[in-house]
Amino acid sequence: MKTPSGDHSTPPSKSDYDLDDDLDKDLNGDTLREECGVFGIFGHPEAAAITALGLHALQHRGQEAAGIVTYDGHRFHSERRLGLVGDTFSRAEVIERLPGSMAVGHVRYSTTGGTILRNVQPLFAELNAGGFAVGHNGNLTNGLTLRRELVRHGAMMQSTTDTEVILHLVAQSKRGRFIERYIEALRAIEGAYALVSLTNKKLIGARDPLGIRPLVLGELDNCPILASETCALDIIGAKYVRDIEPGEVIVFDEKGTEIHKPFPPQPPRPCIFEYIYFSRPDSIVGGRSVYEVRKAFGAQLARESHVDVDVIVPVPDSGVPAAVGYSQHSGVPFELGIIRNHYVGRTFIQPTQSVRELGVRMKHAPNRAAIEGKRIILIDDSLVRGTTSKKIVRMMRDAGAKEVHFRLASPPIVNPDYYGIDLPDRGGLLAATHTLEEMRQIIGADSLAFLSIDGMYRAMGEPARDPANPKFADHCFTGAYPTHLTDQTQVEQPQHQLSLLAEAS
Amino acid sequence: MKTPSGDHSTPPSKSDYDLDDDLDKDLNGDTLREECGVFGIFGHPEAAAITALGLHALQHRGQEAAGIVTYDGHRFHSERRLGLVGDTFSRAEVIERLPGSMAVGHVRYSTTGGTILRNVQPLFAELNAGGFAVGHNGNLTNGLTLRRELVRHGAMMQSTTDTEVILHLVAQSKRGRFIERYIEALRAIEGAYALVSLTNKKLIGARDPLGIRPLVLGELDNCPILASETCALDIIGAKYVRDIEPGEVIVFDEKGTEIHKPFPPQPPRPCIFEYIYFSRPDSIVGGRSVYEVRKAFGAQLARESHVDVDVIVPVPDSGVPAAVGYSQHSGVPFELGIIRNHYVGRTFIQPTQSVRELGVRMKHAPNRAAIEGKRIILIDDSLVRGTTSKKIVRMMRDAGAKEVHFRLASPPIVNPDYYGIDLPDRGGLLAATHTLEEMRQIIGADSLAFLSIDGMYRAMGEPARDPANPKFADHCFTGAYPTHLTDQTQVEQPQHQLSLLAEAS
Amino acid sequence: MKTPSGDHSTPPSKSDYDLDDDLDKDLNGDTLREECGVFGIFGHPEAAAITALGLHALQHRGQEAAGIVTYDGHRFHSERRLGLVGDTFSRAEVIERLPGSMAVGHVRYSTTGGTILRNVQPLFAELNAGGFAVGHNGNLTNGLTLRRELVRHGAMMQSTTDTEVILHLVAQSKRGRFIERYIEALRAIEGAYALVSLTNKKLIGARDPLGIRPLVLGELDNCPILASETCALDIIGAKYVRDIEPGEVIVFDEKGTEIHKPFPPQPPRPCIFEYIYFSRPDSIVGGRSVYEVRKAFGAQLARESHVDVDVIVPVPDSGVPAAVGYSQHSGVPFELGIIRNHYVGRTFIQPTQSVRELGVRMKHAPNRAAIEGKRIILIDDSLVRGTTSKKIVRMMRDAGAKEVHFRLASPPIVNPDYYGIDLPDRGGLLAATHTLEEMRQIIGADSLAFLSIDGMYRAMGEPARDPANPKFADHCFTGAYPTHLTDQTQVEQPQHQLSLLAEAS
Amino acid sequence: MKTPSGDHSTPPSKSDYDLDDDLDKDLNGDTLREECGVFGIFGHPEAAAITALGLHALQHRGQEAAGIVTYDGHRFHSERRLGLVGDTFSRAEVIERLPGSMAVGHVRYSTTGGTILRNVQPLFAELNAGGFAVGHNGNLTNGLTLRRELVRHGAMMQSTTDTEVILHLVAQSKRGRFIERYIEALRAIEGAYALVSLTNKKLIGARDPLGIRPLVLGELDNCPILASETCALDIIGAKYVRDIEPGEVIVFDEKGTEIHKPFPPQPPRPCIFEYIYFSRPDSIVGGRSVYEVRKAFGAQLARESHVDVDVIVPVPDSGVPAAVGYSQHSGVPFELGIIRNHYVGRTFIQPTQSVRELGVRMKHAPNRAAIEGKRIILIDDSLVRGTTSKKIVRMMRDAGAKEVHFRLASPPIVNPDYYGIDLPDRGGLLAATHTLEEMRQIIGADSLAFLSIDGMYRAMGEPARDPANPKFADHCFTGAYPTHLTDQTQVEQPQHQLSLLAEAS
Repeated sequence: MKTPSGDHSTPPSKSDYDLDDDLDKDLNGDTLREECGVFGIFGHPEAAAITALGLHALQHRGQEAAGIVTYDGHRFHSERRLGLVGDTFSRAEVIERLPGSMAVGHVRYSTTGGTILRNVQPLFAELNAGGFAVGHNGNLTNGLTLRRELVRHGAMMQSTTDTEVILHLVAQSKRGRFIERYIEALRAIEGAYALVSLTNKKLIGARDPLGIRPLVLGELDNCPILASETCALDIIGAKYVRDIEPGEVIVFDEKGTEIHKPFPPQPPRPCIFEYIYFSRPDSIVGGRSVYEVRKAFGAQLARESHVDVDVIVPVPDSGVPAAVGYSQHSGVPFELGIIRNHYVGRTFIQPTQSVRELGVRMKHAPNRAAIEGKRIILIDDSLVRGTTSKKIVRMMRDAGAKEVHFRLASPPIVNPDYYGIDLPDRGGLLAATHTLEEMRQIIGADSLAFLSIDGMYRAMGEPARDPANPKFADHCFTGAYPTHLTDQTQVEQPQHQLSLLAEAS
Repeated sequence: MKTPSGDHSTPPSKSDYDLDDDLDKDLNGDTLREECGVFGIFGHPEAAAITALGLHALQHRGQEAAGIVTYDGHRFHSERRLGLVGDTFSRAEVIERLPGSMAVGHVRYSTTGGTILRNVQPLFAELNAGGFAVGHNGNLTNGLTLRRELVRHGAMMQSTTDTEVILHLVAQSKRGRFIERYIEALRAIEGAYALVSLTNKKLIGARDPLGIRPLVLGELDNCPILASETCALDIIGAKYVRDIEPGEVIVFDEKGTEIHKPFPPQPPRPCIFEYIYFSRPDSIVGGRSVYEVRKAFGAQLARESHVDVDVIVPVPDSGVPAAVGYSQHSGVPFELGIIRNHYVGRTFIQPTQSVRELGVRMKHAPNRAAIEGKRIILIDDSLVRGTTSKKIVRMMRDAGAKEVHFRLASPPIVNPDYYGIDLPDRGGLLAATHTLEEMRQIIGADSLAFLSIDGMYRAMGEPARDPANPKFADHCFTGAYPTHLTDQTQVEQPQHQLSLLAEAS
Repeated sequence: MKTPSGDHSTPPSKSDYDLDDDLDKDLNGDTLREECGVFGIFGHPEAAAITALGLHALQHRGQEAAGIVTYDGHRFHSERRLGLVGDTFSRAEVIERLPGSMAVGHVRYSTTGGTILRNVQPLFAELNAGGFAVGHNGNLTNGLTLRRELVRHGAMMQSTTDTEVILHLVAQSKRGRFIERYIEALRAIEGAYALVSLTNKKLIGARDPLGIRPLVLGELDNCPILASETCALDIIGAKYVRDIEPGEVIVFDEKGTEIHKPFPPQPPRPCIFEYIYFSRPDSIVGGRSVYEVRKAFGAQLARESHVDVDVIVPVPDSGVPAAVGYSQHSGVPFELGIIRNHYVGRTFIQPTQSVRELGVRMKHAPNRAAIEGKRIILIDDSLVRGTTSKKIVRMMRDAGAKEVHFRLASPPIVNPDYYGIDLPDRGGLLAATHTLEEMRQIIGADSLAFLSIDGMYRAMGEPARDPANPKFADHCFTGAYPTHLTDQTQVEQPQHQLSLLAEAS
Repeated sequence: MKTPSGDHSTPPSKSDYDLDDDLDKDLNGDTLREECGVFGIFGHPEAAAITALGLHALQHRGQEAAGIVTYDGHRFHSERRLGLVGDTFSRAEVIERLPGSMAVGHVRYSTTGGTILRNVQPLFAELNAGGFAVGHNGNLTNGLTLRRELVRHGAMMQSTTDTEVILHLVAQSKRGRFIERYIEALRAIEGAYALVSLTNKKLIGARDPLGIRPLVLGELDNCPILASETCALDIIGAKYVRDIEPGEVIVFDEKGTEIHKPFPPQPPRPCIFEYIYFSRPDSIVGGRSVYEVRKAFGAQLARESHVDVDVIVPVPDSGVPAAVGYSQHSGVPFELGIIRNHYVGRTFIQPTQSVRELGVRMKHAPNRAAIEGKRIILIDDSLVRGTTSKKIVRMMRDAGAKEVHFRLASPPIVNPDYYGIDLPDRGGLLAATHTLEEMRQIIGADSLAFLSIDGMYRAMGEPARDPANPKFADHCFTGAYPTHLTDQTQVEQPQHQLSLLAEAS
């Protein structure tokens, strides 16, 4: 869940500059940021403890904040906190404040600017029908449009998330049964979503009609579980049952399971970035091992753009599987040429300019013994702004690498995402504004190559990409957005009414 | 602002018991609790710092939480925290996070159970018209009824305060100008309120049609100030201008001051408890010095029920002015027979039963030298449950008092309040269920007397109470409620949909 | 316990300026500051909980920090924290971390600069003989000299308190029995002390040979208690047994009580400031009610320097008993002309200069109704720098007082203290450097008068002061220091080795 | 620095049991724990900020606590905190509280029981000669003996670390120059140490006569730096100059560098565990790349005990370099068969027994796709208790591995360490009490093999181990302790006087 995506396309007012600066600073880190992870369980006496473990396994999908809502048969209980799952939800007294056998949970990704407690999910509202909690992974492409309309009709927004729009749509539905109101709300929204919801009777899961965001069904002690990835089932020893289907709404209550398919059938378009970066390598997404897909990306890269070198060096940790695949295919040895410091937390203050220019290496350190005097291929998962890549290439040269060839295990990113991936707009995407040769020069590599789009499809076991019917949401590489982008076409309106409140947590 | 008052009349569900136990424990302390204090300023470059000082002077009206919302011309800023004003708002970095020349602030009284950050005021909402913040002192008598209706029509409630009802009413109004929408909302609500509100253009003050809750207008450096009491003007050296009139809506913006009187004129009924207990002795309320009124209550008590004793002993601090008045009128020496420990904070854990029975005296200690061998009159401001009075009488006897006569500087409280004073219901009010003689025996005093209702009026400089047209809201003594009690007559409906969410702050 | 008192007489090094500035700022507040309070109990199953309550009753003697050490038969347990007793020791989990039936506790006064956790008492050391904890109220006049000597011989100091000197002296004694080592240490020290000490077998109390600092013996459930004041007995319903005698060392263990009197008998010289300011009014110090003494000071003032006025106004809270005494003796009405805000905690940031000049009144507010148009006598307990008095006189005039006469219920303070009272040096004492008329002009009063020294003695029920044999430690008024001032005569040595470490808590 | 090592060999008193349980629980994690890391810099205007970065790079050597002491020409400043370096020392306000151009810092390893703020280093004392701060990596083998002697002669111990012994020895030395006193202290201690010390003039580094603990010299902007490992130089771009020699004492002050060699020359015996586990792979220790040594261990393992398998799987992260070496030597593919969750912080509470038995995998998750149906070799760095190995083998089988062969890149650990490595005593070391076959059965592997001792030496580029003159401190494998174990031979004395104080931080 993120701030309505249209925000960035309007000229920011003066008071917004700080935020954008922060954002910029953060994205200089050049990392894709996942939008969220969700988890839900129904009917288990230790619902909150299990949800905490599940969220912990999904921590890579969001480090900013975490929340759990439970229902104990009488009352809803909610704990939402900034920070890692383990900071809060490892403690017995917190879990004890979350009694009940039904729970939904959420982890949220880390931004610098706008994180406030009000935005931490699951969101909760007291509807006429009773309490209702929602955790959302994804982003609505008409969230801002709906929000404006709701506000115009007197709705009061408490958060700046577009998830709140869903709550209001459910609240205002005139349908009779709760599930009908819920489905009516889903029919109004566009975009990407994997939702877990809790009422005082039901756990509900829902996945957008194209299946852009992932959601799987598991089972533990005969209790159904919903989770963003299978690794959240593995941590608690739960059985993987199946993926929730694109457009499926699944409802668990005392009486059993109910399945709704409120949308006309369409070919699915799961997000390709789950394979490239987001999902954990040990997860199975859409029936494919993420680790094996990444190795196959690496092997395909070796096929497409190999040069003669002494060693293959991954940019840790995200480049490791592709580097293993590349090394195995090419026969060039895999070496840990970069060591990652896993203790990096906050940003340290930096000493004087003179020292800063020496290049303080908080997160990555060169392993000189593996690099010095060698010709190396560096492998990373993807390239966003290029600033990190540039630093790493320079670090390799400083450590004595004779040649540095940079390889990316995904195609050039040339378009923004509107489905929950936190990318800069086009101006900030290196590949959108530079030729390959320009990029090579900026990064300072001896050669630079990306995985081809068709190569990416082939590594997935598909034929080359079919432009008429692409199998994945690959718009960042191709511009082929799988849904309407309603908010993007309506940005002419001033948006003064949003995000006016800055509140410290 | 408090949880909807009807809550307590329905049988609590199992999960509510803890809360009620806490409440009960707290009220055993036998203290009237004020509902809140509000403050607002328009056009001052240091609006937040001044508001912090004003709230500090109003701290006696609410110790549970405090909040300030400012607007800086571009954006609203909000800081709301549990704890004392000085815990948070004395710090430069907090004030710096509250830029702007317009501010409203709020202090909230201390309860044990339901305090959660969501309920801390000023509440804020983003309406179609822009941001809107409200701080409320008082309680609505149709808040629950309105809330149900709003929820039934799809409104989503985020807090459990009835202040939120006002926000929703403004949001849903179809009127054109903001002030018309605001007044439409006021017309829908019943009960007691002193409101300070902030939009991106205006500071608005409003007082209920009967003026039950106080609100004064001041001025500092040509900037208008709104505050619950004059002591909040004195602390910053601001000039007292006048009381906001009952039913008055006053609007400050760049263009000047606008006054609205949307209600038909009625005789005012300010709450008599502001004089008895709530307001600070150095405040001027409705043109009267609170200190002088309390002294006059004491003198009147001396007139009505004096007995021959050696010393007059106040129950500190609330009984001191009345004791001074009693002593001056009677000529019997005033002595500090009870010493109050001002460091009392949290409730200490108590040692073993044996020690507990000795009576641990956390808050009040007897000053044996002033009491031993003496006949004393103890003076307190009012009597609620009687548990504290009983302990104090016993403490006086243990310290050697020969006779202990108990005098209350107000009449017997026999009815609950529905306007923001946190009283137990009738069953918990000692005077509602016992004769004077029974009360005397329970408290263990040699004699017991209350101020008469007519005496109370006379001490205020009025003739005896006119039942046809009482000058004050005195329903706790007389049962004459000044407004409809809509919520009280509609409690038959189950209220399962409210307050379902327990959230830790 | 404070930093070695010689510190202030040497020119501060550059790095010390900040501290002194802070100190100065603080003392501008013009308040006498108590040095500490101590408490101990032996043989009670809930020693820590009782000690926490006792310390809470002694909170007025020190608000900076508090600590408790217990022994459970196997191990010592210690909790020492900055802040009020109630902030930490009201919590069950803290008390549970302090098992055992023997406890000593300490509260420490509030300074701004040098407060660090290392200095919080009781101090603890592991001696050859076993663990040893000490809490100290008072100040040694040869602490610095002893410290230098100990350090010269290889002792390592961890705190900057002179209490640590006592621990080292005990550690280095070559005597056989523990109590002999303890007494040897006492014989080496000069100055003022009330000590509570704990070993793995004994609770020990000790009072300096002149009884400068107070220490009383109480009893609860047959367990002996030591405390600085009787109010710490009253809070837990303990019986007052007697005062520990000057020079007495009292030892409690399983076998019973052992009394040592290691010093030659001398006429006692208890500190007169316990009556003037430090002790709580409900305490009995040296057999006298503090409240009654203060009233007698007020009555004596009325005898010595009355003028014709309309009302008597105390500076709260310390001036109240003297004002009651003055009013009763003079027949002039006592009025609460100044209201004290008991919520004052941290120092608030102040708005702009213009506002600041209006005079923000955080702590004291004028009660205009009691003052306006009146001739008043203001009564305070003592005068240090005069800055507060000046502000209060101006506040009274601003509130409309026609005449303001200032009366002090103690003589002029013209000399510093070296026994634990935190006074400025002579240059900072208004009375040490100005005539009465100059002081009157500075303060801005219509008249100014102090209690005479002989009047002070008479109010205590003594004849006029006998210069050959004064009954009290009254050196601040008379210059007659009751002990050697060894450190003061040896300040020529550089003190670079002390207090070098600044550590944040 | 750890609690005196003799502690564990005496029967624990009742009150010690909890601690031991905790310890046990912790060691079940089956991890070697490093004792500490040190850092120092002289003459740099941003000494504290640079020290913070250096400590961050040494974070793997200690996660429990961190501290920095600086000297600013007038005063020492100290900040010592529990938690990671980045939790505290990344913040500008903390660094600002540490002014000065000389600094020493320390990170301390994570234990559960006895961590208290008093023990966090650098320790500081005010000696006769001035302030003195010490950070210590290592452990003294006569620390307890010296401590007893010092306490017997009146020394007061404030911490339970044996580092404090060094401070007392310096304090009590009668020598004239500070450095002579320091060296006298070093001559009295036995065991392993790398020390960084700060006085008001000097930065001093010292390494024990056998060089058991590492210490390197670096340079940044012409300022000398001392650090436990070269990775702490790399992070700030400092130049590596040389290793401090065994037995060398190096002193930096305004005048330059002074080198002392107070010990008779001996063949060095650096700790072999720095290569096996402790040092970061990118560090150069004793002239050897830690990464290359670990790869060589893996290659040697392949030479010694290869079996035919499908894949090589490292236990992350410590087994990765050896697995890379093994894979390269054997030609069997390297695969990430286990995924490590780097977000593991606190221990989570675990749901019911039924769930717990399924095996919650907080830290390691199987990567099923890489394992299923495969014969695998698992490579880990070392084996302590075996509990983790057992779980990992079972996890591999549950994930479908057909065969699981376990290989350790170090010899069997059969003896405890007394030089700062936190190992269980012999009873807790699996290899000390079981045959190879028994271990294989316990762990549940199809085969089990350790690196041979001679193979370990050969992988280091040495000939086979020379029992007459081993080149490394390898006592955990061989029993050949390089120094006296004074404390171990004197454990008959009761130790009641130590560690009596339990204090919360």
